[in-house]
Amino acid sequence: MQNIAIVGAGLVGSLLSIYLKKRGHSVTVFERRTDMRKKGAESGRSINLALSNRGLRALEEVGLADELKRVAIPMHGRMMHDLHGKRSSFAYGKEGQYINSVSRSELNVVLMNEAERLGVEFRFEQRITKVDLEKTSLTVFSPESIVNSQTQGIDYGLKTKDFAFDYIIGADGAFSAVRTAFQFTDRFDYEQDYIDHGYKELHIPPGANGTFQLEKNYLHIWPRESFMMIALPNPDGSFTCTLFFPFEGNPSFDSLKTKAAIQQFFQETFPDAERLMPGLINDFEINPTSSLVTIQCYPWVRNHTLLIGDAAHGIVPFYGQGMNAGFEDCRILNALLDQYHENWETVLPAFQTLRKPDADAIARLALDNFIEMRDLVADEEFLLRKKIESKLYQLFPDKWIPLYPMVTFMDTMRYSDALTIGLKQKQIMDEVMQQPHIETSWEQLDFKSIVEKL
Amino acid sequence: MQNIAIVGAGLVGSLLSIYLKKRGHSVTVFERRTDMRKKGAESGRSINLALSNRGLRALEEVGLADELKRVAIPMHGRMMHDLHGKRSSFAYGKEGQYINSVSRSELNVVLMNEAERLGVEFRFEQRITKVDLEKTSLTVFSPESIVNSQTQGIDYGLKTKDFAFDYIIGADGAFSAVRTAFQFTDRFDYEQDYIDHGYKELHIPPGANGTFQLEKNYLHIWPRESFMMIALPNPDGSFTCTLFFPFEGNPSFDSLKTKAAIQQFFQETFPDAERLMPGLINDFEINPTSSLVTIQCYPWVRNHTLLIGDAAHGIVPFYGQGMNAGFEDCRILNALLDQYHENWETVLPAFQTLRKPDADAIARLALDNFIEMRDLVADEEFLLRKKIESKLYQLFPDKWIPLYPMVTFMDTMRYSDALTIGLKQKQIMDEVMQQPHIETSWEQLDFKSIVEKL
Repeated sequence: MQNIAIVGAGLVGSLLSIYLKKRGHSVTVFERRTDMRKKGAESGRSINLALSNRGLRALEEVGLADELKRVAIPMHGRMMHDLHGKRSSFAYGKEGQYINSVSRSELNVVLMNEAERLGVEFRFEQRITKVDLEKTSLTVFSPESIVNSQTQGIDYGLKTKDFAFDYIIGADGAFSAVRTAFQFTDRFDYEQDYIDHGYKELHIPPGANGTFQLEKNYLHIWPRESFMMIALPNPDGSFTCTLFFPFEGNPSFDSLKTKAAIQQFFQETFPDAERLMPGLINDFEINPTSSLVTIQCYPWVRNHTLLIGDAAHGIVPFYGQGMNAGFEDCRILNALLDQYHENWETVLPAFQTLRKPDADAIARLALDNFIEMRDLVADEEFLLRKKIESKLYQLFPDKWIPLYPMVTFMDTMRYSDALTIGLKQKQIMDEVMQQPHIETSWEQLDFKSIVEKL
Repeated sequence: MQNIAIVGAGLVGSLLSIYLKKRGHSVTVFERRTDMRKKGAESGRSINLALSNRGLRALEEVGLADELKRVAIPMHGRMMHDLHGKRSSFAYGKEGQYINSVSRSELNVVLMNEAERLGVEFRFEQRITKVDLEKTSLTVFSPESIVNSQTQGIDYGLKTKDFAFDYIIGADGAFSAVRTAFQFTDRFDYEQDYIDHGYKELHIPPGANGTFQLEKNYLHIWPRESFMMIALPNPDGSFTCTLFFPFEGNPSFDSLKTKAAIQQFFQETFPDAERLMPGLINDFEINPTSSLVTIQCYPWVRNHTLLIGDAAHGIVPFYGQGMNAGFEDCRILNALLDQYHENWETVLPAFQTLRKPDADAIARLALDNFIEMRDLVADEEFLLRKKIESKLYQLFPDKWIPLYPMVTFMDTMRYSDALTIGLKQKQIMDEVMQQPHIETSWEQLDFKSIVEKL
């Protein structure tokens, strides 16, 4: 039995605590925020998320998939909205393949409750002020230390407490405090790269009697070339909209300064959505504008400390894979602990070696997918290409699986393999699309010979 | 007059303090280490450096070029040493174009002395514990604060002192404390990327009566494909050698574990140098193995705080341009202060916009040059290419300036322009080298038509 600290009680930290507790370890989770299960807690990050097969597979392993599927809303495809409010849809995969809109906080609560039930100790309002990678210890500043210091007159430097562990796992997200300690060690490669777009969450309330005002079982997209808005359904009939929009330029968050400008922009750009957003101006002015960053680093292991999830590989949200990749991290770490008979000295290096190419692959795919979502899904040629690929998938379901279903539904295929195959498919499809009159003659293609090129 | 803090009393910080003091500002320099002019001070980083035209131009502007030229050793070209000790040389540019081997500490002392003479205040042993980018203030932990706290019983949190300024400039190198504060602000792009090679300094002592045991006026290179050793002359007749070598693999720092292994490796790999290195084993075992990193970040300005030199753009040493680029930063900042009549609100953003593409260009050139130095300079085809380019330079000195002299000797050409022109030249030369029997027929080339392609 190892004495393990997990830093971060978010989705990945909570799931990992369940896996490790089930293996018989002593697990303490340190969380900077207050317990989200208490009233008045910080609302945290995005409201809903797309849970797909990789995430579900991990939840199945810890016995929570069924409970979560009951509160999830299946989204079978993309529903695109053009400038006139005209809609067209495109299925994500084959019949029965879909992604799930789930509430981030609900999912997090289910995971924390299960972890506590199993005996994981959660400590909230614990700010990590130091991570000692030599001693595998955490220095923590917490409300109790303030109280102690006031009654006992202890000075500032002693308002913290040190805890030593066998292993520390940093699951504390894109702005990881554990990773900061790594950054002051030699030969730690690190990159944080912001895109020029930020995001803001907006709201479409339920219709009369809790009805959905847009088609319920889709991920809605308003692609507008250089930016886009999306909407995911919530169980109460509402939709959470997210505007992905440049920080600067015209139009941008910077250029929409007045109520009138906001209203006019939405009326012109998202007319069908704007009509369903009575609180638009207030939401736009009050909700924060958040930035979007890709984090890449290596190594993920220093002595007995490991980075996992967003702390090791923060990605942009455009493939809906951030949480899924983090859950897959937990599943794979657990599988390696099985494979190497709980030998942590072997498992931690094996984990980073195995997993780093996959993290890099999904980081790249997520950036590429922003261009696809905001621009290409409104492009005729691109849609034809997708149509041909769907046909190939239908005819040769084991041989030509398009990139999106590989990433989203093939829950044991490595992200790096999906990327490699996807690039090869793109090359083949580039050639196919060069054929004259492809838009009228595509159904006469020799599909078998196309698949054989792969 | 502005009240300005410079963090870092290294080469760039010291030079910048002279520029700014001469403009009439109040300048305080905070340095973490002890005063290197005192005995027993930390030896610091590499022993000698290649000072070239960009650096000299800045030193000329502050009136120190002549003083430094007197203690510099001109290096007119590369002297390559093959496995059998056979040597061949290649000039860096035209007659009269050369780079200079200078002592880092000597140069630093000259700069600090001049700065102090002008009235710059240097404060040593000052560790920056916080940079407040809103208030433009530094929190500093220094020996005096320790003394004060012991006599006055002040607690740990008060062992530091705050200083507020009009502007703070972080010239504190690749591991900048000022930049760390930037990293915790939103939308700060940052990358630290280590190469797989480290370096270790070694020593060739002077011969009898202070004679040079290798040709004095060259930069010596032992190119060995995947690694290399170089040597720069010192005024006392010695050479400082630097082995650039993989950390892992075979051979590597990791694989040379015993005295016998070190000795044998040097005898086989650098036989002519090994004979001149009586202290090899001791140097190899005692001198540190240091890592090599490229640092890229943006923006360089937050409110009234600026990053400059290695703090803004740390590069690998293979183009000999790290210090030169930092000195050029100072020259350009000074020129912008002239151009915008000391309007700092305009100058700081203008500086980063102008300078960032040049920093990125030299970072890339420096990485590329490692491959050239360790591998290509021993390659027949590459040497022929160089020979043809030299001929072009000789025939059309204003039209075809090879990349190395553009970067090294053209002290007003932007690094980014040099890179662009260099890539175009490479494209043209790739074609030229495709011609049949080029190795025997190159002197019959139509040089004029080659130049006209540029």
